[in-house]
Amino acid sequence: MTLPSSVHPPQRVLLGPGPSVIDPAVLSALARPTLGHLDPAFLVIMDEVRGMLRQVMGTENELTFPMSGTGSAGMETCLVNLIEPGDPVLVAVNGVFGTRMAEVARRAGAEVTTVEQTWGRSFSADELRAGAGGKSFKLLCIVHAETSTGVLQDLAAARTVADECDALLLVDCVTSLGGHAVHLDDMGVDAAYSGTQKCLSCPPGLSPISFSPRASAVLSERKTPVQSWYLDLSMISNYWGSDRAYHHTAPINMLYGLHESLRLILVEGLEERIARHALHGRALVAGLESMGLAPRVAAEERLAPLTAVAVPQGIDDGRARSFLLNQFGLEIGGGLGPMAGNTWRIGLMGAGATRHSVTLCLAALRAALTDQGQDPGVDPLMAAGEIYAS
Amino acid sequence: MTLPSSVHPPQRVLLGPGPSVIDPAVLSALARPTLGHLDPAFLVIMDEVRGMLRQVMGTENELTFPMSGTGSAGMETCLVNLIEPGDPVLVAVNGVFGTRMAEVARRAGAEVTTVEQTWGRSFSADELRAGAGGKSFKLLCIVHAETSTGVLQDLAAARTVADECDALLLVDCVTSLGGHAVHLDDMGVDAAYSGTQKCLSCPPGLSPISFSPRASAVLSERKTPVQSWYLDLSMISNYWGSDRAYHHTAPINMLYGLHESLRLILVEGLEERIARHALHGRALVAGLESMGLAPRVAAEERLAPLTAVAVPQGIDDGRARSFLLNQFGLEIGGGLGPMAGNTWRIGLMGAGATRHSVTLCLAALRAALTDQGQDPGVDPLMAAGEIYAS
Repeated sequence: MTLPSSVHPPQRVLLGPGPSVIDPAVLSALARPTLGHLDPAFLVIMDEVRGMLRQVMGTENELTFPMSGTGSAGMETCLVNLIEPGDPVLVAVNGVFGTRMAEVARRAGAEVTTVEQTWGRSFSADELRAGAGGKSFKLLCIVHAETSTGVLQDLAAARTVADECDALLLVDCVTSLGGHAVHLDDMGVDAAYSGTQKCLSCPPGLSPISFSPRASAVLSERKTPVQSWYLDLSMISNYWGSDRAYHHTAPINMLYGLHESLRLILVEGLEERIARHALHGRALVAGLESMGLAPRVAAEERLAPLTAVAVPQGIDDGRARSFLLNQFGLEIGGGLGPMAGNTWRIGLMGAGATRHSVTLCLAALRAALTDQGQDPGVDPLMAAGEIYAS
Repeated sequence: MTLPSSVHPPQRVLLGPGPSVIDPAVLSALARPTLGHLDPAFLVIMDEVRGMLRQVMGTENELTFPMSGTGSAGMETCLVNLIEPGDPVLVAVNGVFGTRMAEVARRAGAEVTTVEQTWGRSFSADELRAGAGGKSFKLLCIVHAETSTGVLQDLAAARTVADECDALLLVDCVTSLGGHAVHLDDMGVDAAYSGTQKCLSCPPGLSPISFSPRASAVLSERKTPVQSWYLDLSMISNYWGSDRAYHHTAPINMLYGLHESLRLILVEGLEERIARHALHGRALVAGLESMGLAPRVAAEERLAPLTAVAVPQGIDDGRARSFLLNQFGLEIGGGLGPMAGNTWRIGLMGAGATRHSVTLCLAALRAALTDQGQDPGVDPLMAAGEIYAS
C-alpha cells in the first residue's frame, strides 16, 4: 500500500440531515493545544461547557454534560441508565430514531411496548394514550425532531400521557436542540440527549445529555449495575462533577469545538437563532413548492431545520444527489427505510441556516431537475424571496 | 452566567499517561472542512485509515477500524461483542485496566474468573495457567501495556495459555500501539483495542479495534444480540465495509486527526518509532535513577513509553505535580488505586518521545525536589546523556 497523503477534504456545503455547516471558529477551536483531562485549565473549560449547555437546553439539571460518543451513544446512555431488566417502557415510533430507541431499550432488557404512527406524522395525546392502553410504564420515549422524516413532536402531549402512566419522559432532541425551542425544565422532560452535528453546528462526536432530579433519583436507586460501563452515568457524573474522579479520558479537542459552538449560540441568542431557523426553513419550502416539490410533512408539524420532500416522479434520486455534490459541492440527504429512494432531506441547521444556503440549494436543485429533463419552468428564488420580503 | 470567551488553552508538555504530545500536523488536520459521513471523498479517507491501521497493528484482519469513543469504549466493544450471557472468561488483573476488563465482562453477563498479580509485575505462563485451573474459557483477557503501573506483558505466554484453555486472546494495546512492537497476527491476538491519545499521538476520542477471523466467526455465530447497540460490530462493520450502511454518524474530524497521526507513524517507520521510544525511555530512567528515584517496574518488564517511579519519601505528590505544571507547563501523571499519592507516571509517547521531553522532565523534576528541600545533588542530564552517547 502506498502511503496516503494528508487529508485535504473538498469544501462542501452540508445541507443534509447532519453533519451540518460548521462555523470556522468551531473548526479553529478543535485545533487548539490539547490539555490533560485533569488539568485545572481543562476543568474550567468543562464547567463552562456545562453552564452553556444548561442554558441551551433550558435546564437547571445538575446532571447535564456531553457524552463521549455520537448521538446514538447519548440515546443508549439515557436508556441503559434508566432501564433495569424487566422494566416496562413505552416507545413512540414514527421513524428511524423511534425504531432505534425501541431496539436499544430491548437490548437493555426492557419490556418494550411500541405505539406506532405513520412516518411523516407526529403523535397526538390520544394516540399516545391509546398506545399506553391504561398501563403504567417506567419510561415514555419519544423523538422531538424525527431526523428521518422531518416531523416535530408536541412534547406537551407526551408529558400529559407520561404523567397518566407514571412514566419518566425521555426525549430525543438530536435535531431540535439549537434549532427549535428546547426548554427541558418548562417542558417537563426527565431525560434528553442530543448530538453536536445538527443545529449546534459542531462536528459529530459528542452527545449532550441531561437528567432531571427525578431521573437522577431513578439512577441512584438502581438495584442492578448499568450494563454499559462506558456509559454509566453514576461514574461519569463523578468526573463532570466536583469529584473529578477519572473514568475515561475525555475527548479534549472535541470539547473545545463544542465550547465554541455553544458560545456562538449564546452570542446570537437562543430566540434569535430559533427565529432564524424558522425563517429560512419557510423560505426553502416556498421555493421547493414553487418548483412542484411536495413536502412530506404538513406545515403545522414540520421541522424548521430539516425538510423532507418527495423526489418527483421520473427523477433518479442517486443521480440527482451526485449531480448536486459534483457540480455544486452541495450535500443533501436521501431517505431512510420506507423513504429510501423517494425522499430528499434538506437540512438548514445552525451555521447552515442562511439565505445563502437556501439560494444555493434551490438553484442547484432546479439545475438537477433540468439535468434530468424536468425544467420546472419557474425560478424558485422568487418564491423564497417573497418569504424574505414579508 | 457571563458568557465565557473562546478557549485558549495554555501550551502544556504532556508527559503523563495520556493524552500525549500532539504533532501540529495532527491538530491542523482536525480543523479541515467537515465532510458528510457518506461523502465519496470521506469513504476514501475511511479506507486509508483502515489500511494504515492494519499496518500499524500488524494485521490483515478485515474487521479493523476505529470505534467512535475513547479507549474504554474499545474495551467494552471487544467484550460485549464476544461475550454472551454465562460465557466463562478469564481476566488477568495486575492494574486498573485488567480490573476494568473484569468489571466490563461481568456487566456483559460473563462468568468471570480473575487471575491476580502484584501491581507492577507481569504474568508468566505458569501464573496464567494456575489461574486457569485446567478449565476452558471463551476468552483470555490481558493488558499488553498496563498504563496504571508501567508493565509490559509478554503476549507469547498469554497465547500459550489461551490455547491450552481453548480461549480467544483479547489484548488491551492502549499504551503499546505505536510505542512497542504490536503485531497482532504474529502474536496470535484474536481481538485488540487501543486508544488514540497515547503512542499514536492523536487527541483522545477514538479507539482502534481489530478482530481476527476466529473472533469475527464468534461474533457472527452469536445466539443473542450484542447488548450495546452503539458498539455492535455486526452493524458497524457494514458501515466500514463495502455496504456503507448508515449506523451512526462517524466523528469525521477526529478521523482526519487519526489519519494524519497514522500517516506520521508510517512516514517515520514502525521499527524506527519503537526504537525511538526505547531510547528515550532508557534515558529517562537513567536520569531518574541518578536522582535516586526508583522505578516501580523491573527493567525486563518495563514499558518504554510509560515509566512509573516511586515518589520519594518526604515529597508531597500533589505539590510537586502542581509545581511542574505551574512553573514549567509540564504534566506528569499521578498513581491510581494503591499507587495513588506514592507514584508518578511519566509518559514519553509518540511525538513526546524526544530528548527535548527527557531533558525538560528531568530538569523540572530536579527543581521540584529542590523546591521541597530535597536537592538531589546531581544533574540528571548527565546520566541521560550517557545513554544518548552510547
